[in-house]
Amino acid sequence: MEKIICFGEVLLRLGPEGYYRFIQADKFVVNYTGAEANVAVALAQFGMKTEVVTKLPNNDIAKAAVATLKKFGAGTENIVYGGDRVGVYFVEKGASQRPSKVVYDRKYSSISFAKQNDFNWDKIFEDASAFIFTGITAALGENLPAILLDACKMARAKGVKVFCDLNYRKNLWTPERAQSVMQELVHYVDVLIGNEEDADKVLGVKAANTDVAKGELDKTSYIDVARKLTERYGCQMIATTLRTSISASDNNWAGMLYTNGKAYFSKEYKIHIVDRVGGGDSFASGLMYGLLNGFESQEALEFAVAASCLKHSIELDFNLVSVSEIEALVKGDGSGRVQR
Amino acid sequence: MEKIICFGEVLLRLGPEGYYRFIQADKFVVNYTGAEANVAVALAQFGMKTEVVTKLPNNDIAKAAVATLKKFGAGTENIVYGGDRVGVYFVEKGASQRPSKVVYDRKYSSISFAKQNDFNWDKIFEDASAFIFTGITAALGENLPAILLDACKMARAKGVKVFCDLNYRKNLWTPERAQSVMQELVHYVDVLIGNEEDADKVLGVKAANTDVAKGELDKTSYIDVARKLTERYGCQMIATTLRTSISASDNNWAGMLYTNGKAYFSKEYKIHIVDRVGGGDSFASGLMYGLLNGFESQEALEFAVAASCLKHSIELDFNLVSVSEIEALVKGDGSGRVQR
Amino acid sequence: MEKIICFGEVLLRLGPEGYYRFIQADKFVVNYTGAEANVAVALAQFGMKTEVVTKLPNNDIAKAAVATLKKFGAGTENIVYGGDRVGVYFVEKGASQRPSKVVYDRKYSSISFAKQNDFNWDKIFEDASAFIFTGITAALGENLPAILLDACKMARAKGVKVFCDLNYRKNLWTPERAQSVMQELVHYVDVLIGNEEDADKVLGVKAANTDVAKGELDKTSYIDVARKLTERYGCQMIATTLRTSISASDNNWAGMLYTNGKAYFSKEYKIHIVDRVGGGDSFASGLMYGLLNGFESQEALEFAVAASCLKHSIELDFNLVSVSEIEALVKGDGSGRVQR
Amino acid sequence: MEKIICFGEVLLRLGPEGYYRFIQADKFVVNYTGAEANVAVALAQFGMKTEVVTKLPNNDIAKAAVATLKKFGAGTENIVYGGDRVGVYFVEKGASQRPSKVVYDRKYSSISFAKQNDFNWDKIFEDASAFIFTGITAALGENLPAILLDACKMARAKGVKVFCDLNYRKNLWTPERAQSVMQELVHYVDVLIGNEEDADKVLGVKAANTDVAKGELDKTSYIDVARKLTERYGCQMIATTLRTSISASDNNWAGMLYTNGKAYFSKEYKIHIVDRVGGGDSFASGLMYGLLNGFESQEALEFAVAASCLKHSIELDFNLVSVSEIEALVKGDGSGRVQR
Amino acid sequence: MEKIICFGEVLLRLGPEGYYRFIQADKFVVNYTGAEANVAVALAQFGMKTEVVTKLPNNDIAKAAVATLKKFGAGTENIVYGGDRVGVYFVEKGASQRPSKVVYDRKYSSISFAKQNDFNWDKIFEDASAFIFTGITAALGENLPAILLDACKMARAKGVKVFCDLNYRKNLWTPERAQSVMQELVHYVDVLIGNEEDADKVLGVKAANTDVAKGELDKTSYIDVARKLTERYGCQMIATTLRTSISASDNNWAGMLYTNGKAYFSKEYKIHIVDRVGGGDSFASGLMYGLLNGFESQEALEFAVAASCLKHSIELDFNLVSVSEIEALVKGDGSGRVQR
Amino acid sequence: MEKIICFGEVLLRLGPEGYYRFIQADKFVVNYTGAEANVAVALAQFGMKTEVVTKLPNNDIAKAAVATLKKFGAGTENIVYGGDRVGVYFVEKGASQRPSKVVYDRKYSSISFAKQNDFNWDKIFEDASAFIFTGITAALGENLPAILLDACKMARAKGVKVFCDLNYRKNLWTPERAQSVMQELVHYVDVLIGNEEDADKVLGVKAANTDVAKGELDKTSYIDVARKLTERYGCQMIATTLRTSISASDNNWAGMLYTNGKAYFSKEYKIHIVDRVGGGDSFASGLMYGLLNGFESQEALEFAVAASCLKHSIELDFNLVSVSEIEALVKGDGSGRVQR
Repeated sequence: MEKIICFGEVLLRLGPEGYYRFIQADKFVVNYTGAEANVAVALAQFGMKTEVVTKLPNNDIAKAAVATLKKFGAGTENIVYGGDRVGVYFVEKGASQRPSKVVYDRKYSSISFAKQNDFNWDKIFEDASAFIFTGITAALGENLPAILLDACKMARAKGVKVFCDLNYRKNLWTPERAQSVMQELVHYVDVLIGNEEDADKVLGVKAANTDVAKGELDKTSYIDVARKLTERYGCQMIATTLRTSISASDNNWAGMLYTNGKAYFSKEYKIHIVDRVGGGDSFASGLMYGLLNGFESQEALEFAVAASCLKHSIELDFNLVSVSEIEALVKGDGSGRVQR
Repeated sequence: MEKIICFGEVLLRLGPEGYYRFIQADKFVVNYTGAEANVAVALAQFGMKTEVVTKLPNNDIAKAAVATLKKFGAGTENIVYGGDRVGVYFVEKGASQRPSKVVYDRKYSSISFAKQNDFNWDKIFEDASAFIFTGITAALGENLPAILLDACKMARAKGVKVFCDLNYRKNLWTPERAQSVMQELVHYVDVLIGNEEDADKVLGVKAANTDVAKGELDKTSYIDVARKLTERYGCQMIATTLRTSISASDNNWAGMLYTNGKAYFSKEYKIHIVDRVGGGDSFASGLMYGLLNGFESQEALEFAVAASCLKHSIELDFNLVSVSEIEALVKGDGSGRVQR
Repeated sequence: MEKIICFGEVLLRLGPEGYYRFIQADKFVVNYTGAEANVAVALAQFGMKTEVVTKLPNNDIAKAAVATLKKFGAGTENIVYGGDRVGVYFVEKGASQRPSKVVYDRKYSSISFAKQNDFNWDKIFEDASAFIFTGITAALGENLPAILLDACKMARAKGVKVFCDLNYRKNLWTPERAQSVMQELVHYVDVLIGNEEDADKVLGVKAANTDVAKGELDKTSYIDVARKLTERYGCQMIATTLRTSISASDNNWAGMLYTNGKAYFSKEYKIHIVDRVGGGDSFASGLMYGLLNGFESQEALEFAVAASCLKHSIELDFNLVSVSEIEALVKGDGSGRVQR
Repeated sequence: MEKIICFGEVLLRLGPEGYYRFIQADKFVVNYTGAEANVAVALAQFGMKTEVVTKLPNNDIAKAAVATLKKFGAGTENIVYGGDRVGVYFVEKGASQRPSKVVYDRKYSSISFAKQNDFNWDKIFEDASAFIFTGITAALGENLPAILLDACKMARAKGVKVFCDLNYRKNLWTPERAQSVMQELVHYVDVLIGNEEDADKVLGVKAANTDVAKGELDKTSYIDVARKLTERYGCQMIATTLRTSISASDNNWAGMLYTNGKAYFSKEYKIHIVDRVGGGDSFASGLMYGLLNGFESQEALEFAVAASCLKHSIELDFNLVSVSEIEALVKGDGSGRVQR
Repeated sequence: MEKIICFGEVLLRLGPEGYYRFIQADKFVVNYTGAEANVAVALAQFGMKTEVVTKLPNNDIAKAAVATLKKFGAGTENIVYGGDRVGVYFVEKGASQRPSKVVYDRKYSSISFAKQNDFNWDKIFEDASAFIFTGITAALGENLPAILLDACKMARAKGVKVFCDLNYRKNLWTPERAQSVMQELVHYVDVLIGNEEDADKVLGVKAANTDVAKGELDKTSYIDVARKLTERYGCQMIATTLRTSISASDNNWAGMLYTNGKAYFSKEYKIHIVDRVGGGDSFASGLMYGLLNGFESQEALEFAVAASCLKHSIELDFNLVSVSEIEALVKGDGSGRVQR
Repeated sequence: MEKIICFGEVLLRLGPEGYYRFIQADKFVVNYTGAEANVAVALAQFGMKTEVVTKLPNNDIAKAAVATLKKFGAGTENIVYGGDRVGVYFVEKGASQRPSKVVYDRKYSSISFAKQNDFNWDKIFEDASAFIFTGITAALGENLPAILLDACKMARAKGVKVFCDLNYRKNLWTPERAQSVMQELVHYVDVLIGNEEDADKVLGVKAANTDVAKGELDKTSYIDVARKLTERYGCQMIATTLRTSISASDNNWAGMLYTNGKAYFSKEYKIHIVDRVGGGDSFASGLMYGLLNGFESQEALEFAVAASCLKHSIELDFNLVSVSEIEALVKGDGSGRVQR
């Protein structure tokens, strides 16, 4: 089986149990996570071979992070060690009208100081069939754009399929900086994932007439954006999740896949949320599973949307579901009847 | 007060807290439960005198199980000791589109190796007014059908009212085996509880045109099945719960009682689920309470449905509610306003 | 900054975690709370200077209570020490059709035996701009009505604005006793908060044709009650929360403010409840914040309703939200999208 | 089997987990306990039939208390209901040089307001062979001395053996009050349990030259006190525990039994403490087991001391050990080797 | 790096937190463990490549077990799937004079029904340098002796070093059965680990004059046993742990290694116990590390004893320490000063 | 009452519960702490007025830190806001031969980038009677030495007594850097606290013939070092704790105070450790309490040592004891008998 390379930061996630706020907590739930690590774990649960590529310090917290990745089946052989710290992010789960809140403490992490020669992409991509990174990785530190460019070029040279989830984070960089970095990288991307805000902020492609905060979805504008992205950057496929936030407790969830000039829209799910962090990553991993296993476009999209629908029912960031569980939902059993 | 005899397996229930999956858990919540034990506990909470009859090994886990039954008021004087193990079942609570998952580890339990002479039914039924068993008990081991036949005959001989909840479990036996066992036993049953799947799989009585997975309810088909069951097996009453699974988090819930050629349908409740395990058992116990206390048919049914509606709002398997709490709901206060 | 004086009992709140019932619990979550303490804490979170005035015993439980108030920013310099016990109340959180249940064990608490000379109102109201008490305080003990009358007179003498939340509790006193006490006190109240049941039971002002248990709201009857209250007692403003209990898990929530012959109604929120205890207190504190900071009537009302809407999404009694979080909701972002 | 009647208060015990102090705790561990309830539970674990006689209010906390007693096998049929509250006591576990700390909130509890006609001793002592009360019960309320006198007289009249553990508590009463009450009651006591402080404060019998705080034990002074007690009050037996407090974490533990002019001293155990609350009660119950089952004096004493030694290794108040576990320790296996 | 093959059962370990007894627990701590799995994990922590060979059912509990092994670095590629159940064992931690208690529920587990052709030893031993099994594995089921004989023969044929820890468990088999099985297997063992009880019960080699329960150690008798074992079975090395149980909280701990007619004794440690389960396995893995890395006899023994000394300070079964932590203790730093 | 100014970093402390290692933890216990914050909290518990001066970022984690300080009575009015992060430190509690382990993640914290003009020492020292800082603060960032020099000069100018605890941390700076910074600052220090390692590494004053790792104490060498320190730097008093580490679970603990050419040695305590982090800070705060309240030297030292002895019995970093609890221990009651 060929490997899928997932490159990005692995962070320590900390947050209160249940619906307590930070100020109330005298315990934090611990997880080791990150957008690309989430993809790696989800794909490993689907039976794929994955490798998390990152840089971590030489300390016991990093060791615990690596053990967690191993537990859930992700490969950790290509992790580079050095630097001072594991990035941290704090999450407080929202409910009803109160949004979830994320406090980042990822500045100065080991990967943010990574250097180009930390990663031997030639070796990393041996026996690899796919590569994924997100816009977050590109935003982490000064050298990351160059490191990613090295990786993308090597991937293309080796015939490795490149996936990118734009994942714009306003607290990591400005749209200007994002565009200056990402516009070059996206030329190497085969499958591009991102919502309208991402397309606008990261790639300067704007959709007309959609107000995300209102939760209204306008199919034509999505198609318009996707078409522009394929034309401008040459990506084969554009995928996006379509989230309607009714409240922090209830969301509607669907997706679109655009390829060869055609847009596919998935079934929409009404989700009662357990933990929505990692929802986008679970869509990306579901899509990768479908596309790497030769699913048709509609089929791959439905798999991705069902996979990420299930993610919202699971605590913490990882999408710990099996292919058969996803397929049961795709086939229409969302009734949640007990499986004995 | 006369006793109600509840015969079946008492298991150790284990499962992660909240909505964590098995693979994430480093603690399991512990309960000691079982379909008939759930009935015994619920009836004890209503002020009835109950006895759990079962077989358990001589070890500390069984002792903890018995202590739990005692805590919630169920009698434990007729428990037989011997064999190797307390059956175990693992439950992972579902949410939204993700169903709850049950992993059984009940094979080789003490009761599954029970023998006919383990139980002195003549003595057990002294001062008893009712007897309940479920189809699960009949499926547990080679000797259980004969043991149950002994019990049913003795109950009838002593004028003890017999209740049976069909509770078909596909991982315990096949429809063929179920039918070969249950068709004989059901002739001794006064009040038979079961849904359409049970009637079909366990007794070979099929309802036309209903697809349970779709959550659609067709009253005429229910009546049809109930009529057939009374005709074929001579039961006085047939009761069934009517569950519409919207998702693992939200269900609609109602019930039907059929007797003397007439079908009664209850009010329907929209339930936001805390723990739905034991929902059927709480219906059975509510119905028993009503019927044994001389309620009219509609009244008994409404009591049973309201009782089991409340069960869904309580953690773990037992229905720990009082008669007055159920009556308040029957009278229409489902608004959940704080009781101070 | 001028102080807000909050006078009432500080209790130890105990209750099972999650949705367990009392009988199932082998741990109780601990908080130190009380209607007026909740107001003090919420206002402190908004950046206001507050003082909790109460009487507590000289023991380690009272010390823990005071530390909790300090943690959340409430002043504790005017607490009087003496007597035997910290009042206790036990809360079991409801869900779906099962209501939350409160068991009070507050009788014989230190404050219930307080005496008039325990409190030096002249000193307490130094640099104070507002005073709040609830009907609960008036009901606690024999001397409390006289103590409150002292306080109200001193407040009026010093130009301190008086807020009162009627908060009728049927297990603390009868309507007759409540009326005999409160009708005098209300003459000193500038802003009176209470729902229809309060107006009826505590002040003998009845609204026609509204059945609270059914969750129906009739605007004209609310206005009618408010008008009568201002006429009869001379209050400047009457405010009320408008709660529609769909179930213990879902409520609709709005408010009305009546002043100068005009009634203002707020936006209504559909709330999925985390913990509704303290919901009324969070409305009172939101309203106080608005009025004390010179908000227009509609604006103050919307702030109060949004503040208390958010309270329902937070565990335990305190409304631990910031002004900016409330303002974001007032401005319409109730979509609960993650804040990174 | 004849019953053992245990009369006293049942309290809610609350305290932080592990070695946290009250002020640090946001959860309290819950138990329902009391000196005589502890005796009833321990004896039930040994296979004896016991009844807890007490008065509790009609609320859910009392129901949880009763369920806990049932769980551990104590009878609850003779509990009287009424009054306002379940007494509470807060415990903070000490360690090393920091002592455990108890905050009582038991004033005004239901039993403290009990009346003589609440208890029908004639009926309670039907089929009873033994009766135990402690000095704590006598100190709880105005009517308790008279109630206890009724009980003692009835016990003597019916040939029920009376055990009394003096258990002096300085925060419940003064030595003067204790002596005025207990000196009369002790005349009905067959087996009296108490340490030197108890003998001095409760019965005015002083031992020379022993400073308990220093942890020094002087056998002759113990014998002297015991002799005086038998002479003055006519008790058949005097028993005492001999605790040497090295620290809150380590104690030495032994006991003395004095009867027929002869003193028996037990083996001494070096105990590493898990929870020492209930240590005295476990000694009393061990002694009762031995004496009621016809053990020789030395044998009964060794059983009592080993039983209470084991109690110190168990969390919370109850001594949840079996007769065979105690006998193994009596026979000398204190090595703590794993039992598989 | 060459692999170390660890063959035996992987169980689900369940037990109360802290020092609670089974009957008190409403949560069980979860671990997935087993004598040989413990060795595999410890060696993986030391940086060795290990493989756990076992048979597990196809269910989510087994998946969680495998994930746990992966987390701590053990290989899981050669696990065979089939059968009904993961064996379970319940552990209640002892303290002071109260011993830890183990309740086994491992009968009927998947491995106990394993067949000879389930395991392809030729393939399993590819690139392997060492093999370890314990007497427990041999006792599990009818076919295990034959399976182990296959493995031992293949190991010898391939030049793989064989380690065996006798680990006699009286509840799994009788001395007669143990001897009939093990006496043949031991002929293939290079390094034999076992205490005197093991030698006596499993191999019929008795040491004179030692009473283990008394915790007395007699060096000459140990040497005598070791000499006999090497003579009778041809093992190159005999190792034993020397445990003196002062109580369940405090043990002294040392070891002996006998080879080439010479006995080496280690330093003795006074241990304050956190969790002693897995203590023997940590000695075995420490010894394997030393011997497989070419340590001198004394050095290997000291490493093994220090490793297992540290295990006693860690919760649950695994010895999660690094080589450098062990070496620091071997060099004499047992002072426990904070490492910053 | 005059204020005590405590200047240093406030960190987020995270660590597993009980004796779990980092790699095992899926929850971390949360505290907000720091050497000087610990002193401020302890003194506040003793009834003193304290102010924590530090720099923290503007985020919710910092808000929780400030709330924690407030809870335990420390003043927070002079905290400066800015920068990126709250420093973090991870603690794993050791036991027996396994040492506690600290992983620091405090680099790049807000205070480490603090600038001289962040702190207005003239205003901070208004109404202040004492100032404390530790060597840790001096080591945190480039500007801290200059900031501390500003503070020390202002303190001296205002007659504020200066305390310094040397607290050498090898992972924060080298002895060379420490000496170049601290030798200047120490000239402003009135009471200097430090052990032999501190004196050697931070101030270049070496004691002969003491090997700390061996836990041996040599009084004459301590006196020698103290004498040299007073001579070289002009401090009025030198204090040191005398810790003998028997293991991570058991320490002996005493202290020395040197002043006016005379050395005072305290009683020594044998401590069974709950949490030893903050032990040194509790000694410093105990000493400050004694000296600022006019205790004699021996008396102040005994108070400090008893205070810090008790700290070891309390979870987490703060010394949450009262003056009366300490005085009881000073007077000799270390027997740990229950306080009711």
